[in-house]
Amino acid sequence: MASQSPSPATASFAQHLQTILPAESGRSSLCTSVIPALLDSIVSVAAALRVSHHVALAGGTNAFGDDQLNVDVTAENLIREALTGCPTVVTASSEEDPIEKAVHAEPIDASSPEIYTVAFDPLDGSSIIAPNWTVGTIAGVWDGPTAIGSNPATAQIASLLGVYGPRTTAVLALRVPGYKSACIDLGYSEGPGGGPGSWAIVNANVQLAEGPVKTRYFSPANLRACVEDELYNGLIKQYISEKYTLRYAGGLVPDVIHQLVKGHGVYVSPVTPNSKAKLRRLYELCPMALIMECVGGKAVSFETFTNVLDTPLGNTDERGGIIFGTTDEVVKASDRLRR
Amino acid sequence: MASQSPSPATASFAQHLQTILPAESGRSSLCTSVIPALLDSIVSVAAALRVSHHVALAGGTNAFGDDQLNVDVTAENLIREALTGCPTVVTASSEEDPIEKAVHAEPIDASSPEIYTVAFDPLDGSSIIAPNWTVGTIAGVWDGPTAIGSNPATAQIASLLGVYGPRTTAVLALRVPGYKSACIDLGYSEGPGGGPGSWAIVNANVQLAEGPVKTRYFSPANLRACVEDELYNGLIKQYISEKYTLRYAGGLVPDVIHQLVKGHGVYVSPVTPNSKAKLRRLYELCPMALIMECVGGKAVSFETFTNVLDTPLGNTDERGGIIFGTTDEVVKASDRLRR
Repeated sequence: MASQSPSPATASFAQHLQTILPAESGRSSLCTSVIPALLDSIVSVAAALRVSHHVALAGGTNAFGDDQLNVDVTAENLIREALTGCPTVVTASSEEDPIEKAVHAEPIDASSPEIYTVAFDPLDGSSIIAPNWTVGTIAGVWDGPTAIGSNPATAQIASLLGVYGPRTTAVLALRVPGYKSACIDLGYSEGPGGGPGSWAIVNANVQLAEGPVKTRYFSPANLRACVEDELYNGLIKQYISEKYTLRYAGGLVPDVIHQLVKGHGVYVSPVTPNSKAKLRRLYELCPMALIMECVGGKAVSFETFTNVLDTPLGNTDERGGIIFGTTDEVVKASDRLRR
Repeated sequence: MASQSPSPATASFAQHLQTILPAESGRSSLCTSVIPALLDSIVSVAAALRVSHHVALAGGTNAFGDDQLNVDVTAENLIREALTGCPTVVTASSEEDPIEKAVHAEPIDASSPEIYTVAFDPLDGSSIIAPNWTVGTIAGVWDGPTAIGSNPATAQIASLLGVYGPRTTAVLALRVPGYKSACIDLGYSEGPGGGPGSWAIVNANVQLAEGPVKTRYFSPANLRACVEDELYNGLIKQYISEKYTLRYAGGLVPDVIHQLVKGHGVYVSPVTPNSKAKLRRLYELCPMALIMECVGGKAVSFETFTNVLDTPLGNTDERGGIIFGTTDEVVKASDRLRR
């Protein structure tokens, strides 16, 4: 698909990628095929969502029936189709189908200097699709034919979020060993008459704020866990008493974008004996953690308080709690939650 | 503008309006001019937002500079332009320009059987525009040339929300004295090639759930007020201890839509000595309250616990706190907050 349609990235975006990963980095396929194909698929998913009204029978009892499943499947299929246009993406897996499978019928050319696997969550935020809240796509690009057994800190070299709201936007984090890391905010605009458009850089260097900020934001996932976890309950009470501002969309993508745009925030998704971990490391936690580290923030496990990216990936179904955001805030929350 | 372009409402939507307000209601202009023009303007605002990337310099310090003001002004102008195509809308005012002004150069024909004023908030949710979260337009249609001094319960005959998210949707509440009330959920789809599209009914009869629900939602605005208001703090603690699910977008439109789609919820926006009321009765509270009453819910003042719509409108700048949502929940919260 990517080979049939023009790349949706503007020349200036392509040039900017070259300054981050110049020719000698040996990442030309990543920059000219994989990332453009994923951006292309985000445009397609946005277009599909725009007409998917029947996920949202307002007040109806059947808001999460077949139609909504169809939206998930549509997004899954659009992203997989885009990846077939990328010769160096040899395997892919997703939250909808969490098994790393070959993307191409032909056998892998193991001598290729670039070989990738892509792990993606096609449509994150299923509970807020029906009310027309902002939702997103999450994708991680890993070196090699499998993410399993890899060290995320070095093997996950790119993370891309597609953001479906009033606008279609994307955030790309890149961290190839030996080259500088980067986080880029992109906006998509349709061409004249609704035709093919292009992605343009909105901010070439996204960074969280350093030092004190005017407004401190907190995003408490699974607040119901407070009943079971006195330490989590104490943390929430502390945020309230210290007059933090509440922003919690209930979707990982809008919640992380809020931090990036406001330059501050802390997101806590707890795990308790009765509310098991739901977030998957491969499809959700690792991509978010790479973005956080690229913007000067931090992402740690709720269970161990170690960096999410410092633990090798055991399998595609590993799950966990997380604390991410402004570094000082993640440290403060971790200290408060440590048993 | 509305007179130049085809009405964006489908024939089936127009027919449905006729079943609610038949010819003998004397509301043909409301149904064939005012509502279609407002829906038209929602389409225009959605299109303007889609390309307004520079409200959102992710991580930048200037996210709320001139560009964002431009988006507000653009929405304001698009809605005012649409109203000029409505002969029976004689005055209009907005949160951006809260003075009721003549819409047409010609003097009012006081003998006209239909005369309206429209009060609107062109783009509600300014703090969440930059992160690309769902935002909305709020409009109320009032009988007569002015809303000031009117009784909202009978004079505000229609309320319309435009919802700008992954889709463009709208919610229309109608309550003309002597006719049945209604709340309709609408979805907009573009025509082929991105051309003029149409609004279609997604749910012709939006109603909140009656009786017990599986998940109970709460939306606590201005949580920082807990530090000052022990009763509000107690209510929040009660929601947490009773394991209500938190959903709070920080925008009135997405927060009310969440209730309508999920069929349940309670939204509380408190007022304290140090956090004065920000929500305006004319542009925000009254339109929300009409929707709530049309779907079987309730909306009361945070200060008096009386129905928002039962107090005559004193002026366009009146402000207040609010509790709205599922009737049982509004009563429960009011009881808990009563001093």
